[in-house]
Amino acid sequence: MQLYSFFNSSTSYRVRIALRLKGVEHEYLGVNIRTGEHRAPDYVKHINTSAAVPAIAEGDFHLGQSLAIIDWLDARYPEPRLIPAEPQARARVLELAYLIGCDIHPVNNLRVLKYLQDVLDVTPEQKSAWYRHWIAEGMAGVERLLAQAARSHDGPWCFGAAPTLADCCLVPQIANALRMGCDLSAYERSMAVYRHASEHPAFAAAEPQRQPDYTA
Amino acid sequence: MQLYSFFNSSTSYRVRIALRLKGVEHEYLGVNIRTGEHRAPDYVKHINTSAAVPAIAEGDFHLGQSLAIIDWLDARYPEPRLIPAEPQARARVLELAYLIGCDIHPVNNLRVLKYLQDVLDVTPEQKSAWYRHWIAEGMAGVERLLAQAARSHDGPWCFGAAPTLADCCLVPQIANALRMGCDLSAYERSMAVYRHASEHPAFAAAEPQRQPDYTA
Repeated sequence: MQLYSFFNSSTSYRVRIALRLKGVEHEYLGVNIRTGEHRAPDYVKHINTSAAVPAIAEGDFHLGQSLAIIDWLDARYPEPRLIPAEPQARARVLELAYLIGCDIHPVNNLRVLKYLQDVLDVTPEQKSAWYRHWIAEGMAGVERLLAQAARSHDGPWCFGAAPTLADCCLVPQIANALRMGCDLSAYERSMAVYRHASEHPAFAAAEPQRQPDYTA
Repeated sequence: MQLYSFFNSSTSYRVRIALRLKGVEHEYLGVNIRTGEHRAPDYVKHINTSAAVPAIAEGDFHLGQSLAIIDWLDARYPEPRLIPAEPQARARVLELAYLIGCDIHPVNNLRVLKYLQDVLDVTPEQKSAWYRHWIAEGMAGVERLLAQAARSHDGPWCFGAAPTLADCCLVPQIANALRMGCDLSAYERSMAVYRHASEHPAFAAAEPQRQPDYTA
């Protein structure tokens, strides 16, 4: 399998965690989204129709969208399962994953911040306030979901004793917010999951600074 | 079952389509996100922890996030299935759904447009250019995915003879863009799906102007 990834992309980071948790051997191919490699005609035509990272390839099969990739990995490499089969447990994991994947991450990713800066000409302070606003709004919801989940389990992961898709989404989102200088100390449950994950070899191996295309 | 929905919310519209396709009887409860009813403490505490629409309730079970709701409906009311079981077919449907649900919709929803206007003080022209920019970027990707899909089926839906989660996401996104005055004539495959859906009773019944909380 090939993984097309950019070290600093949170969505690539989600898939890196999933691949490591499942122990799937893969070739890492860096795609520099800062210089626009994800928009190169050959990449869009043959690798990822969505013109984005991450993408995976296995033989003739190519797939983009991090959440679709992790769903597919769960079918192709079922152990350990990252999205529960039981409908209500599954619903809770997906709800948290989508809160991050649909409500928090998209508004704060590189292309949006670039548009604010390059087209709307916002100041660095306005850009930073934008980022912090959506983090604060979204993370409050994440904390409420984790508090609700904690009524039926003791952690240390979002939904109990083993990591799920929710943790694959939460950890990169927190890492991203910390890199942007956000104070996340109020989000105690989220930070407890993040600290626990930092000690886990699969999560640690997926960190941006440990990728082959990392640059300081 | 109760559905908490706002007539003009694209994510509520996705769930309305899914409920109608499956013929699930439900009570429609309007939540006015323009006046902030989704942030009312009782709603956040008891109905939707994410402080958003849509949400569903069935007895003690409450769930937010449109894509998690449709996944749950597919388990609870399997006919007709909206997310295929076969891994590669499933991957294609999810990839398109996430392109819309993660890359297009979140950047252009009400709260983001409000922030641009109220906090960043952009002009109506800048707000409209922002909207059109993300539609153009995202819809180009949707068209490429539909072209790829069309190699293995003849339509009339995104992925063949029956509607899927992809259609539940595409139709509200197009309706939203048309309402915002976008010219979508270049997106021929997407518009063909949209026109076909407009004739389908489940899709028609889910349209904003046919909801009990509709106001002109």
